[in-house]
Amino acid sequence: EQTLQLSGSTAGVGVDQELISSVPSENPTFISRNFTDAEIAYCRAQPSFQASFAARWVGKEAVFKSLGVSSKGAGAAMKEIEILPNEAGAPEVTLHGDAKVAAAAKGISKIHLSLSHSDTVAVAFAQASTA
Amino acid sequence: EQTLQLSGSTAGVGVDQELISSVPSENPTFISRNFTDAEIAYCRAQPSFQASFAARWVGKEAVFKSLGVSSKGAGAAMKEIEILPNEAGAPEVTLHGDAKVAAAAKGISKIHLSLSHSDTVAVAFAQASTA
Amino acid sequence: EQTLQLSGSTAGVGVDQELISSVPSENPTFISRNFTDAEIAYCRAQPSFQASFAARWVGKEAVFKSLGVSSKGAGAAMKEIEILPNEAGAPEVTLHGDAKVAAAAKGISKIHLSLSHSDTVAVAFAQASTA
Repeated sequence: EQTLQLSGSTAGVGVDQELISSVPSENPTFISRNFTDAEIAYCRAQPSFQASFAARWVGKEAVFKSLGVSSKGAGAAMKEIEILPNEAGAPEVTLHGDAKVAAAAKGISKIHLSLSHSDTVAVAFAQASTA
Repeated sequence: EQTLQLSGSTAGVGVDQELISSVPSENPTFISRNFTDAEIAYCRAQPSFQASFAARWVGKEAVFKSLGVSSKGAGAAMKEIEILPNEAGAPEVTLHGDAKVAAAAKGISKIHLSLSHSDTVAVAFAQASTA
Repeated sequence: EQTLQLSGSTAGVGVDQELISSVPSENPTFISRNFTDAEIAYCRAQPSFQASFAARWVGKEAVFKSLGVSSKGAGAAMKEIEILPNEAGAPEVTLHGDAKVAAAAKGISKIHLSLSHSDTVAVAFAQASTA
């Protein structure tokens, strides 16, 4: 007789920033190792592909931090954290593989993300929420 | 017999940053187009009006991103996102006009905002929550 | 017969950034006044103690902002906001003294925090949540 809409609470937050010039966006090995084909196609179509790759890179780092899992080490695949624009142009996070498993284990069902870059610096903020 | 206090969940987040020098705070057209009279009076009374306008500017951008609406285009009035200090000195967001309508349509009832600036850079973070 | 897990809502957010060079991390009075013994031991063991102290310093400022209390003035003890890594290496906030009392008075039971630094800038984001 009573419907309760229970809302999600925050599981973790993450912030990250980098100089755009410090992200090796012209290194094909770095790019193919860390970005999905869809991300690469999107970034290459932007006015500054360097700024676009850098913003996504700090976005992946911020999402990783928001998951609250232990130090990623050499084995972590940032490619498993995919960031693509939704129909409103806002960044939408999709997790794959181990990242998806880690988030599910913590009950995380949604990751909010925002990206920003000036001429020189990219910054990202992520918030992981439970259902 | 039972009172349930149901809490709001996050609808969106927004981050933005700019070099203070890149915000045209000495351009009267830019100022009058984008800031309310109360915001202008407040910023002009601060130790650095440039830093104060720049912080509010990135604040408006961050709030706009947190609403998750489509690209603002030329018609968007950033003046509809008003940022003034509350009695504790923290930035409080009030929406007007189309921005208010857009937020209501998404069930957004509260926007948390924080601003920061160093000597050269202003940064803002916004979180839009549902009731 | 029914268990409801009610989740916390956001009470406030805080962002802060500083040039690492502008935080007086080599000034023993500044350090002992603002950091706990455990924080000092942790920061001194990091690759760059300057970056580590600066990140914690902006973290304390961000947490302070997220509490939404009035201007701290000369009496505020940032030492009461203690930031130490948890077992996953993520920053964990513990409040002491007046900061703890102020948070409890607002029903704040958890503060999520993330820190980031580039070579030159430290940035922090905090979110205070009610139970």
